[in-house]
Amino acid sequence: MRRIYLAGPDVFHREAVALGTRKNELCAAYGFRGLYPLDHKAPAVAFDQSRAIYSGCLAMIAEADGGIFNLTPFRGPSADVGTVFELGLMIAHGKPCFAYTNFADDLIERLRGNPGLTFDEKTKLWRDPLGMMAEDFGNADNLMLDKALSAQGRRIHRRAVTEDRRFEDLDGFVACLDEARRVFVR
Amino acid sequence: MRRIYLAGPDVFHREAVALGTRKNELCAAYGFRGLYPLDHKAPAVAFDQSRAIYSGCLAMIAEADGGIFNLTPFRGPSADVGTVFELGLMIAHGKPCFAYTNFADDLIERLRGNPGLTFDEKTKLWRDPLGMMAEDFGNADNLMLDKALSAQGRRIHRRAVTEDRRFEDLDGFVACLDEARRVFVR
Repeated sequence: MRRIYLAGPDVFHREAVALGTRKNELCAAYGFRGLYPLDHKAPAVAFDQSRAIYSGCLAMIAEADGGIFNLTPFRGPSADVGTVFELGLMIAHGKPCFAYTNFADDLIERLRGNPGLTFDEKTKLWRDPLGMMAEDFGNADNLMLDKALSAQGRRIHRRAVTEDRRFEDLDGFVACLDEARRVFVR
Repeated sequence: MRRIYLAGPDVFHREAVALGTRKNELCAAYGFRGLYPLDHKAPAVAFDQSRAIYSGCLAMIAEADGGIFNLTPFRGPSADVGTVFELGLMIAHGKPCFAYTNFADDLIERLRGNPGLTFDEKTKLWRDPLGMMAEDFGNADNLMLDKALSAQGRRIHRRAVTEDRRFEDLDGFVACLDEARRVFVR
């Protein structure tokens, strides 16, 4: 049975365990074994709890055959950095990655919503108040994320989900499972 | 000569090329060859410019002996996701990583500055208005980033830099070069 690592800010959710259980059940329905980060049972009390969690996640990623990444923007215009770090690991391992986000818009649309973003007519670039460029490539997030997926022949599944369901809606997750089945089950 | 990949939101800076030149010069002063993402000369016009930049960066990371990562929080409480993705790649390749941030505080201190973060007495956890937990492990950012460094026996160099110099100050970068010299030049 193929093992799929389930990355995302889901682990920070008030119902993180229930959310993981639901994801694991959906994986099972698709014939996969889900590897949810909270399943590795880092010791409740450890000398360095961060280190225990880190090591547990790395071991799971090494063990996994692929991963599903929840790239929903988290506390800002971009995805959770922990999830993105894990995407980098999985891509480097050359394993199939699948991703979704519960925002439908491009990164630039979210950034345009911030005060102070201005368009420089001379360079034709958007810049924030600190003078930092805002990417306008039609991607869901930083180009490295979108292209990590498209270099594998896939894309980030985008869905417009209202804020009250932002970190609970699993339609994008199911779209990734559908895709994973096409990749792994031939 | 050891080659060091130079990751960071520096590429979005108004003076991105000058900043890269300065970083490359500092690398040279330490006996390294800097690999700055803008140096790979992605075609100015390409069928898919994002893809060209992505491929160029991946080739540089594969070529590099190690990397210096600017993890200064970018448009939110956490580091630039493009930089973090590259950190994941480099860690997976098992190459030495060095990192700095131009904020001195812990992630939790930045999050506490946001309206709506509340402490749940029952669980002893901080949560944002969407109910998502805020990590309080004494790390500079998400634990995966801090522990990626500490698992290699290093740490994220933190410095308090004022906003007007946030993306220009290179003291943390020089601290990383110092560290890289100890690792690579024996």
